[in-house]
Amino acid sequence: MFRIEQDLIGEVKIPKDAYYGIHTARAAENFKVSNNRVHPELIKALAVVKQAAADANMTVGLLDRKIGDAIYQAAGEIAEGKYLDQFIVDALQGGAGTSTNMNMNEVVANRAIELLGGEKGDYSLVHPINHVNMSQSTNDVYPTALRIAAMRMLQPLSESCAVLQGALQKKEAEFAGVLKVGRTEMQDAVPITLGQEFSAYAEAISRDRWRLYKVEERLRQINLGGTAVGTGLNAQRRYIYTVVERLRGLTGLGLSRAENMIDVTQNADVFVEVSGLIKANATTLAKIASDLRLLSSGPRAGLAEIKLPDLQAGSSIMPGKVNPVMPEMITQVAYQVIAHDMAITLAVQAGQLELNAFLPLIAANLLPAMEILSQAMRLFADRCILGISADKERCRELLHNSISIVTTLVPHIGYDEAAKIAKEALQRNTGVRQVILEKGIMTAEDLDAVLKPETAVKAGVLGR
Amino acid sequence: MFRIEQDLIGEVKIPKDAYYGIHTARAAENFKVSNNRVHPELIKALAVVKQAAADANMTVGLLDRKIGDAIYQAAGEIAEGKYLDQFIVDALQGGAGTSTNMNMNEVVANRAIELLGGEKGDYSLVHPINHVNMSQSTNDVYPTALRIAAMRMLQPLSESCAVLQGALQKKEAEFAGVLKVGRTEMQDAVPITLGQEFSAYAEAISRDRWRLYKVEERLRQINLGGTAVGTGLNAQRRYIYTVVERLRGLTGLGLSRAENMIDVTQNADVFVEVSGLIKANATTLAKIASDLRLLSSGPRAGLAEIKLPDLQAGSSIMPGKVNPVMPEMITQVAYQVIAHDMAITLAVQAGQLELNAFLPLIAANLLPAMEILSQAMRLFADRCILGISADKERCRELLHNSISIVTTLVPHIGYDEAAKIAKEALQRNTGVRQVILEKGIMTAEDLDAVLKPETAVKAGVLGR
Amino acid sequence: MFRIEQDLIGEVKIPKDAYYGIHTARAAENFKVSNNRVHPELIKALAVVKQAAADANMTVGLLDRKIGDAIYQAAGEIAEGKYLDQFIVDALQGGAGTSTNMNMNEVVANRAIELLGGEKGDYSLVHPINHVNMSQSTNDVYPTALRIAAMRMLQPLSESCAVLQGALQKKEAEFAGVLKVGRTEMQDAVPITLGQEFSAYAEAISRDRWRLYKVEERLRQINLGGTAVGTGLNAQRRYIYTVVERLRGLTGLGLSRAENMIDVTQNADVFVEVSGLIKANATTLAKIASDLRLLSSGPRAGLAEIKLPDLQAGSSIMPGKVNPVMPEMITQVAYQVIAHDMAITLAVQAGQLELNAFLPLIAANLLPAMEILSQAMRLFADRCILGISADKERCRELLHNSISIVTTLVPHIGYDEAAKIAKEALQRNTGVRQVILEKGIMTAEDLDAVLKPETAVKAGVLGR
Amino acid sequence: MFRIEQDLIGEVKIPKDAYYGIHTARAAENFKVSNNRVHPELIKALAVVKQAAADANMTVGLLDRKIGDAIYQAAGEIAEGKYLDQFIVDALQGGAGTSTNMNMNEVVANRAIELLGGEKGDYSLVHPINHVNMSQSTNDVYPTALRIAAMRMLQPLSESCAVLQGALQKKEAEFAGVLKVGRTEMQDAVPITLGQEFSAYAEAISRDRWRLYKVEERLRQINLGGTAVGTGLNAQRRYIYTVVERLRGLTGLGLSRAENMIDVTQNADVFVEVSGLIKANATTLAKIASDLRLLSSGPRAGLAEIKLPDLQAGSSIMPGKVNPVMPEMITQVAYQVIAHDMAITLAVQAGQLELNAFLPLIAANLLPAMEILSQAMRLFADRCILGISADKERCRELLHNSISIVTTLVPHIGYDEAAKIAKEALQRNTGVRQVILEKGIMTAEDLDAVLKPETAVKAGVLGR
Repeated sequence: MFRIEQDLIGEVKIPKDAYYGIHTARAAENFKVSNNRVHPELIKALAVVKQAAADANMTVGLLDRKIGDAIYQAAGEIAEGKYLDQFIVDALQGGAGTSTNMNMNEVVANRAIELLGGEKGDYSLVHPINHVNMSQSTNDVYPTALRIAAMRMLQPLSESCAVLQGALQKKEAEFAGVLKVGRTEMQDAVPITLGQEFSAYAEAISRDRWRLYKVEERLRQINLGGTAVGTGLNAQRRYIYTVVERLRGLTGLGLSRAENMIDVTQNADVFVEVSGLIKANATTLAKIASDLRLLSSGPRAGLAEIKLPDLQAGSSIMPGKVNPVMPEMITQVAYQVIAHDMAITLAVQAGQLELNAFLPLIAANLLPAMEILSQAMRLFADRCILGISADKERCRELLHNSISIVTTLVPHIGYDEAAKIAKEALQRNTGVRQVILEKGIMTAEDLDAVLKPETAVKAGVLGR
Repeated sequence: MFRIEQDLIGEVKIPKDAYYGIHTARAAENFKVSNNRVHPELIKALAVVKQAAADANMTVGLLDRKIGDAIYQAAGEIAEGKYLDQFIVDALQGGAGTSTNMNMNEVVANRAIELLGGEKGDYSLVHPINHVNMSQSTNDVYPTALRIAAMRMLQPLSESCAVLQGALQKKEAEFAGVLKVGRTEMQDAVPITLGQEFSAYAEAISRDRWRLYKVEERLRQINLGGTAVGTGLNAQRRYIYTVVERLRGLTGLGLSRAENMIDVTQNADVFVEVSGLIKANATTLAKIASDLRLLSSGPRAGLAEIKLPDLQAGSSIMPGKVNPVMPEMITQVAYQVIAHDMAITLAVQAGQLELNAFLPLIAANLLPAMEILSQAMRLFADRCILGISADKERCRELLHNSISIVTTLVPHIGYDEAAKIAKEALQRNTGVRQVILEKGIMTAEDLDAVLKPETAVKAGVLGR
Repeated sequence: MFRIEQDLIGEVKIPKDAYYGIHTARAAENFKVSNNRVHPELIKALAVVKQAAADANMTVGLLDRKIGDAIYQAAGEIAEGKYLDQFIVDALQGGAGTSTNMNMNEVVANRAIELLGGEKGDYSLVHPINHVNMSQSTNDVYPTALRIAAMRMLQPLSESCAVLQGALQKKEAEFAGVLKVGRTEMQDAVPITLGQEFSAYAEAISRDRWRLYKVEERLRQINLGGTAVGTGLNAQRRYIYTVVERLRGLTGLGLSRAENMIDVTQNADVFVEVSGLIKANATTLAKIASDLRLLSSGPRAGLAEIKLPDLQAGSSIMPGKVNPVMPEMITQVAYQVIAHDMAITLAVQAGQLELNAFLPLIAANLLPAMEILSQAMRLFADRCILGISADKERCRELLHNSISIVTTLVPHIGYDEAAKIAKEALQRNTGVRQVILEKGIMTAEDLDAVLKPETAVKAGVLGR
Repeated sequence: MFRIEQDLIGEVKIPKDAYYGIHTARAAENFKVSNNRVHPELIKALAVVKQAAADANMTVGLLDRKIGDAIYQAAGEIAEGKYLDQFIVDALQGGAGTSTNMNMNEVVANRAIELLGGEKGDYSLVHPINHVNMSQSTNDVYPTALRIAAMRMLQPLSESCAVLQGALQKKEAEFAGVLKVGRTEMQDAVPITLGQEFSAYAEAISRDRWRLYKVEERLRQINLGGTAVGTGLNAQRRYIYTVVERLRGLTGLGLSRAENMIDVTQNADVFVEVSGLIKANATTLAKIASDLRLLSSGPRAGLAEIKLPDLQAGSSIMPGKVNPVMPEMITQVAYQVIAHDMAITLAVQAGQLELNAFLPLIAANLLPAMEILSQAMRLFADRCILGISADKERCRELLHNSISIVTTLVPHIGYDEAAKIAKEALQRNTGVRQVILEKGIMTAEDLDAVLKPETAVKAGVLGR
């Protein structure tokens, strides 16, 4: 069952029950490219913008109360997650987001018509553009909605970050006494504790949290009210002031009107900045994940200093093999986020004159980047970090066997002499202690004061 | 309603109707990260590999005919697209693809059990690993399936490329006589025809087709039979020879066993190569899309030499505005493909020792890249290129008005003199012809022989 | 003429006059790969670190005053730019910067020996490691030096940014009254002024300045005193406190000791953050440069709304052609910076355990990125922006000719009706005004109140 | 001492001895941005193009023999590497290469003037544009020269690749008998030989050689004769045919005239393709380098299966520490090449209409990428691969200790039973053999037939 809608180009059959209309239907056909739909958080955020606009339009007396109330309620329903299946345009749509805005205008209009007792498609009751889009342009509502969606997704991302930091700090405390060999450039170096290693991870993640906090600040400035190019044409001044206030109220976010809305309409550099900060998180995660794969390598022929929790059988051919699947997932998520940053960078640099036409690409990469990081960090904390156990014995054995403890001798006998001892110990396949004693370089007593891994993990020169 | 399944880690409740089993269920929980599932073409390709393996295992007498036939039939159904909803593990799964392989093993086993009249979960009839995965490892079946999926997706990609090339060539012919000003560095340069411009687009796309043809060659070598690390442990020699042959038969693809299966198991460089070739296509499309946006800019205050077909209303605020939405979509697709290439590059360089654990990331970027390019090129051809019209009059007017036609004078009067004329014409806001005649540099007759745009689009020195 | 030096591996001939020694000579041979040397700012910063360390070592009584003073003086000379030709190791050196540190240790030692009246190579007077490198490790001095170098290079970068912003603001004021057509998605949109366009550029660049200010904050935390892995082994506590204070004094920078030096030793995420912020600047520049190429396209067959200053002949074949070479240079610099960010991202994610071995790659990309941006922005301001002139007449003509002024009618006659008028005007190749009057939709008087470009560049609904 | 030169913009003082002239001097000032000069191979290649053009121009009677011969000789000198210091324009120059072409035209002209007995700057004898640039445009000579430079640099790159492959194959043979544990996802897997691991490296590098061979093919098509936009304006047909032939003769390269020179003038996709193939080489090198760092980790607390040659002291604080500096250098080179690919991709997608203005950026990234890879692979082979030694004992010990040999039991006792044995052996900290015998699952005799690492590295099911 269909209804007929029409625009300047011609007529299109629309499924009778559909809340979307002709502009949506055309766009859905034109951009059938990726099978990915627009992110639900972007749709919900756009619906909130429509609510704020309807409210402001009524307040300044532009919009009939009855129509405005229906629009407000309809948009509110979408903002709560209803009718998401009516947003059928591909995420990689051309047109700077106009098709998503049109999709929203149509769904809101038809739902509002329904609320007013009319038939879907009877735009004489509520018009998608004249009423729902009143005082607006895609070019101000879409970037505003994208900012809101990103700010909202920061919340869970920040929380995931905190959860991960907490998990790492728990392990930092638990492993505080696990003495082990430090490694630089994959070669045995001076002593460290496993707890210290986890403290470094936790610290790096805490920096990411701080960065996410900064991201929020960067997104606050919106160009809502700027309409087509940021000049505010067709938007009354009172409307402009009101709509931002209303939006602040509806979202609870610290949004503020950009002083230069022309700038915010055409420049998308803030998304490169935000994505860059998120990418820093990704690289930190990649580093931690790589470390965990190294430290848990084995179980017999690797470093095997830690054990990751068994989550699932690791191999379809090798029985009993358990793989570091969570760190591997994390690495992949990190790499995907780096790739998303690339897409965002490309989109941002390609803006032209009064608009960046590639905002849909930015949305299609920024929001998923935030989402997979958020999900991944939480899973990482819960299913991997918290279950890590240390093999204290193994750590101690590798440390005591190592040569680089010779470093503590440098302040006593100099670098060159120490280097010779290291070389000899290595070649003779024996320990540093033995070589020194044999050569009578130091007394056993003095030596014991110097070769003390327990204190070597703290600042200072041993034996003095 | 549930059934209980069990592995070394413990028990898990599985929905009674589910074809997947415990390994899948665990993985689905562990990797709940992106909401993206494994690409259907990869699943279908993996199912075909399972068919080939079952067949080969029966042939060499390892697998009971009754069990083997059931497996073959079950895998065949999946290969045709059934049960795709049973593949529930996230695309960004850790574990080098083991979870997808396990998912397949379980779905095939349970469907085979069903075919044999058993109850799902009764793996004494058909065992996911001992039977379905017989003589196999994730590490050989998964990269083999990925290659098959990619080769199969090349077909529509190549066809889309051909469709686009055809459309461009049609326009090349149509616009052969449309004389216009060429532009280098966005500045007016010497004459060209619009047809010549489209010939350059068509030629570049034809190079892409040739490259896609090369891609196919690069993907042919498979490590099926290499099992865990490429040595072929637990796979009988006869099986190895047979399974590749069977797979060739089932797919109709020119697959061949890699001579060094250890290499193919651990090195994924071929995917960087393939992705790089696909990226070349993306950059060409981005260039063409950018040109079309430039040439169609206007309608009044731009170059306006061509007109793109009206596909949808372009603006929610500016009535009558029609935007170049298809070229914009193309640009976004091109940028997304470049981003996919980045993810693939990161994954490939991160391989370690006997395996690249990040094949799932490669799959999750390579196959979508091929898909969006394929869809996008076809839409581009059908909904944009074929509908382009030229504004001959405008082209001619801009050309005749231009200064750089003075280039044709260089062989006659030298560069410095010609430059002076150009400068004067520009400053006086007049034409080159007039300045020359005024100055008596050439006779009107000689000049007419030289200032001929019609012939200036062909090689040679005019006026000689 | 040579001297012989020796290490555990064997003997090497060193040019008699060379200040560098055997470790440098070996590294120079091993890493002969890119022909690029280590950035001078990094060398100078490392020399300052050596000064601070010598001072601190003397203060806490570890280092003999006579030796220490000579080291301090020698390092001070290098810090001022002397002996830079003695730093011969390739920028892409392996070894986490050890070779650059060794190079520094040797040059300082030999220069100190010289100052003490000795012969180069007589390390019994001043030893490169025991004395010059006392209480230090590459792993703390190198990242500290890199941070200092980056902070110092921020100064000129920030200043260039300010110069560019100033130039853009000058043009913003100059072009405040130049009314023109705005363009979104390369299609004629609503009116704007050229001054408003430049205000958007200036605003974006001011955001970059603010970001650069933030970058400085991010770089302040140093791990000097952490030695090999951040635990501070072989560095006395008093030394650690003193050395950072001394370094602060010598550089005048707001450096502070990291609370968790293990973290700062192994994690390089801050460089991804910094590079990301710098990349935002690059994308903004790319956008501005692209706009200027569009707006200055012509001179006859382009938009031609502005004219860039003539800097050089643009073509070796087309006389009088002047190309937008400065914007093109800017675009290339921006793209190069994006590429540098890629290298930095790759290096950072690849850190392993207690160290990131790829700091030399980070240095080799971060410092040049800052340098080329700094140079480019200054040249851009001086040689391009300041010389831009507007073609007011052309701007006005294109605006008056445009259709999209119809947007101002929407509040009066609705979107659909306005769209029809736009379409008709376009098809009939006439003006919007004429169509409306012909149709009797509005009176001439009412229309004049609405179709006013002068006021259309400000917020509000015209005609009310 | 100066001479005065002049163009349409004004006068410039040129150092009296300089071979370059006013256009070069202006460009050198305008683009003082990166301190990097144009790559010498590009300059030499451009000089050869000038030779060919002079020759062809004389042949078709356009150029006076005396002038032509002087140009030919002058350009020939540059082609051999003379006067490279006269090419002073920055590598990141705007203008599509025009400044480099002008620089060449001027240096050739002044040298030719000198050869003819004139004074530098007296362009009445030999004119940089009218004579040296005759029948040419930057837009055909520059991309042609870039292709020639790249093809020439392929030679040493290919050779380096061959050297590295040879070194790896030598080790493949040497380590053929070194049995060890294979590792997938950093977990112990089934047996392999060290020789097999090196065979995988060698095979991957051989693929790179094959790719480099393909690269050459891709670069052969040139647009020389196409002049400004590829139409060949101002170039006589006879000249066009002749010049390519001459160039083929002078270079010995298999160059051919592109059928569609308009395409080759504006599309630079071939450089994305070439760079993508080179990037594949980089990712392979990164993987090998990462493996070598893992396998040589230790000396006591790592995998320590191989030992890399000692090249230099590894640490300024830890005596005797030797780091894997060559693999680290390789990793950095690989990452730098990936970054170069990014810059090239950005440049290529940004082409507009009849030209890609960003060819200088492509050159500034492609040629160094080839150079550092070439240098790096040779150093890697000579200073690292050839000196690698295996610790056979360590390899054997780790293998015998490992659990995953249980895989060979699967065909005998099934996956689930084998997994239980693996788990028990691991938990009890004992060997697989012992568990099986204790449980009486197999006889000692049968077991010995199955648990045979020596044969486990070959295809097949053991014990049958």
